Amino acid sequence: MYRIPILRMGRSLLVTIQVDMEDQTAMALQDDLAEQIAKTGANGVLIDISALEIVDSFVGRMLAAISGIGRILDATTVVVGMQPAVAITLVELGLSLDGVKTALNVSRGMALLEAAAADGDDLVE
Amino acid sequence: MYRIPILRMGRSLLVTIQVDMEDQTAMALQDDLAEQIAKTGANGVLIDISALEIVDSFVGRMLAAISGIGRILDATTVVVGMQPAVAITLVELGLSLDGVKTALNVSRGMALLEAAAADGDDLVE
Repeated sequence: MYRIPILRMGRSLLVTIQVDMEDQTAMALQDDLAEQIAKTGANGVLIDISALEIVDSFVGRMLAAISGIGRILDATTVVVGMQPAVAITLVELGLSLDGVKTALNVSRGMALLEAAAADGDDLVE
Repeated sequence: MYRIPILRMGRSLLVTIQVDMEDQTAMALQDDLAEQIAKTGANGVLIDISALEIVDSFVGRMLAAISGIGRILDATTVVVGMQPAVAITLVELGLSLDGVKTALNVSRGMALLEAAAADGDDLVE
């Protein structure tokens, strides 16, 4: 089975989704991410979907699920690189990606994660 | 045709190779990378191959070509995440990846790029 690699960058994890996912691949990604967040203590997950030309309800649910898992494990998930046409289609379909943070590109996503981590640090003090 | 996305992270570009590449995909990646290096002024390229279980002479040549193109455009290329079994096979096959810098993972690759950029800055002064 095809597994999507998870890269560690500082205190964040980065996933680049490049191909249309089957159910098994999506499930494996969720499992792998949960495991990696716990193992590395990552406080952020960046998911790049710039290669996806279609985001249907299946992918939308998967992004929401990953986001939810991350939240429970104390990691902020940011979806980056969405193509403009994909955003238009999502709104037209009524898929609002509730609870999923987005950013225009990886750099802005990283900035968002750093800001979230700083807020978290404040709470601990 | 399938195109591998190129992510921009600060002054570097990141490419995650997740699938076995056909000739066309590899050629497109070289073109896209050259264009992005010129467009963004990136001084480093990280190529993650942690998902590859086989690196044959075709992929080896592609990595060397990208590295060469990067060098001419003043960007350091670092191949990261190579699986131990792949390294063993490469040596057994006599493919030494001449001129290609490698690092264990993305974090170390980034550190290598930053060190290279610092050296470059010194030269300019």
